Amino acid sequence: MKIDAVSPLAPDRFPDLPPIAGLDAAVGRAGFYKHERPDLLLMRMPAGTRAAGVFTTNAVGSAPTDWCKQALAATRGSARGLLVNAGCANSFTGPAGDAACKRALEEAGAAIGVETREMLAASTGVIGVVLDDSKIAAALPKMQLAPVDWPKAAAAIMTTDTFAKGAGANCEIDGAKVSIAGVAKGSGMIAPNMATMLAFVFTDAALSAPILKTLLRQETETSFNSITVDGDRSTNDCVLLFATGQAKVPPIPDAKDERLAPFRAALSQVLADLAIQIVRDGEGATKLVAVNVEGAASDASAKAIARTICESPLVKTAIAGEDANWGRIVMAIGRADQPVKKEMIGVRFGDLYAARDGMVSAEYDEAAMSAYMKRPELEITVTVGPGSGRARMYTCDLTKRYVEINGDYRS
Amino acid sequence: MKIDAVSPLAPDRFPDLPPIAGLDAAVGRAGFYKHERPDLLLMRMPAGTRAAGVFTTNAVGSAPTDWCKQALAATRGSARGLLVNAGCANSFTGPAGDAACKRALEEAGAAIGVETREMLAASTGVIGVVLDDSKIAAALPKMQLAPVDWPKAAAAIMTTDTFAKGAGANCEIDGAKVSIAGVAKGSGMIAPNMATMLAFVFTDAALSAPILKTLLRQETETSFNSITVDGDRSTNDCVLLFATGQAKVPPIPDAKDERLAPFRAALSQVLADLAIQIVRDGEGATKLVAVNVEGAASDASAKAIARTICESPLVKTAIAGEDANWGRIVMAIGRADQPVKKEMIGVRFGDLYAARDGMVSAEYDEAAMSAYMKRPELEITVTVGPGSGRARMYTCDLTKRYVEINGDYRS
Repeated sequence: MKIDAVSPLAPDRFPDLPPIAGLDAAVGRAGFYKHERPDLLLMRMPAGTRAAGVFTTNAVGSAPTDWCKQALAATRGSARGLLVNAGCANSFTGPAGDAACKRALEEAGAAIGVETREMLAASTGVIGVVLDDSKIAAALPKMQLAPVDWPKAAAAIMTTDTFAKGAGANCEIDGAKVSIAGVAKGSGMIAPNMATMLAFVFTDAALSAPILKTLLRQETETSFNSITVDGDRSTNDCVLLFATGQAKVPPIPDAKDERLAPFRAALSQVLADLAIQIVRDGEGATKLVAVNVEGAASDASAKAIARTICESPLVKTAIAGEDANWGRIVMAIGRADQPVKKEMIGVRFGDLYAARDGMVSAEYDEAAMSAYMKRPELEITVTVGPGSGRARMYTCDLTKRYVEINGDYRS
Repeated sequence: MKIDAVSPLAPDRFPDLPPIAGLDAAVGRAGFYKHERPDLLLMRMPAGTRAAGVFTTNAVGSAPTDWCKQALAATRGSARGLLVNAGCANSFTGPAGDAACKRALEEAGAAIGVETREMLAASTGVIGVVLDDSKIAAALPKMQLAPVDWPKAAAAIMTTDTFAKGAGANCEIDGAKVSIAGVAKGSGMIAPNMATMLAFVFTDAALSAPILKTLLRQETETSFNSITVDGDRSTNDCVLLFATGQAKVPPIPDAKDERLAPFRAALSQVLADLAIQIVRDGEGATKLVAVNVEGAASDASAKAIARTICESPLVKTAIAGEDANWGRIVMAIGRADQPVKKEMIGVRFGDLYAARDGMVSAEYDEAAMSAYMKRPELEITVTVGPGSGRARMYTCDLTKRYVEINGDYRS
């Protein structure tokens, strides 16, 4: 696998993330890649940390996602350690893969003084290869815990990513100051439910596991479940949210509590920021595209239409070619198998109308449209009928580079 | 739009098709393309011809498919003329497009002595542009009907196709000899229900419109509805089946009549042949891939899994790279949202097992696998569980050339 030049859509720099008290991390190299690069991240959370996860809906899954689901259920959301490796997904590896995952967590837990049952795991990389946990065992002695260095942590979990991804926010819960910081990885095999990626988000707020779970599920819908690069949903996706409880917060009984509103907004912002960074790093991407659907029968219907547009190879290749081929967007609306009013369909690029009321728009201006298409960030808005359903989804273009990257991934 | 070199998967030559008595055709140039090429096909069928059609399920549709549906309903399946143009889809063109379609059929019908109500229309090309019927009117006087020249007829309806597509068969119905001959076009925007294409199939058998409709619907399922190039379903797909009734056939009351078995088999073969030719001409294709799914909960479930594999960008780019990346096939099985037994999943390339029983296969041989992947025609078979559901679907690889072709389609 070749390492690509940094995506032209990458942010200027890694953001400054707020410190999360009590959180330590170490990065290392197990050697899952032939070339020199970190491929291991080990994190330790303070006692009392609560956690929740959202996992891939891919029916094949993987040893680490199976482990996390079982562990979070068994501990009712207690977690004190996290081990992440890149280069091997440990998916479709049967009982041998499960055993390797467990052994790796035993070794890593012992190294940081955490019981195996409170360890969580995440792996990405090639599917079908059993994790070689002996490589992890050999790397652990060289890894020293220290307060988290976010850029290094984010870099250690990258696979085909071309830049490290992080996001953070500060907010208050009932007058108490709390922080949120997170890292993510993902570039190809990105689709909703989940997007094919890993994200680990931490807050110092003291929040219960059920509250974390509810907030995470809700806010994932408009962030990681609203991005797509290629529609291929991986076996290993997972988003984990940890609350270390170091910031004193008044007891909050449930996720509906109004005092959580600022936290929910901050969490939503952090997750969306990470999600959009993943699209910015879409394999071969040269354009970041936001697709808005309005007038649908329901929000779910709008999202289905948005997704069909976002995943259409013909729409994505036209965008790569900077061609405002709006007819393909109309085609994608039509093939989404959702209720639409043909005579009300409209398509807009930014503020420029291509189509209105079921036909090419009277003010259609090819020159203005062509100029707009040269921008690195595009906004496409479609109207599909008289309903009030709406959705917003993010995607990138489909370029020759995507084909190149994925034609020789294993070589 | 650039015209590509002929697909490496093209058949050696256009097949010899049986003559269909009473069928005349003319090709011409209306000028929907800037370069010199035929873009019009006009056909005349003898009195008494019965017809049936299967049309795109894309909700946007097009003026010609709307016309055909209405005309076939109004005449109860009588048709005497067919006008096909390439270069303009006349889709998403509102009342203006409907009127242009009707005017073109009036002119064409008058030129061959057929009433407008017995004329059918088909168009492919750019979406969103109203058909300029004056170009067709200007071309008609130069077009002379003559017994069908199949290669010329097939060439006149091509858009991004790199070769003309035809198929034919002879068979018997209750002792009477009958023939079937058909042409098709299609290369990009190809997906089931319908595949994005046009096909016109003719028989000299005397069969009723309801029988034609039933046979066509059934046999489309395993032919045109079992191929996919890019999952993008066009607005203009249509398959039309005409029976001229020139071959004397004993009266057949309905489609279930056992005497139709040889005809059904021959029709199935012709439709499958045309469908596979469309995949062979998939935009940028270098590999023809048959995907078989076994052990599914039902045939429909098997087909959903087959389609997910066939449309996965990561599977298709791996095939383009001649990489036996079977992990991606497992990923695609898992993301099809169908019932599967993880511990029973197996993947085979030809006779070579990559995975068996939920893990990499013991006999996995990377060298043999790599040699197999270099073939132009591949067979991938997956087992997904203990069920008896099965399906077979065809696709091609996803290459840089696909991106190139579709990045500058309108320029």
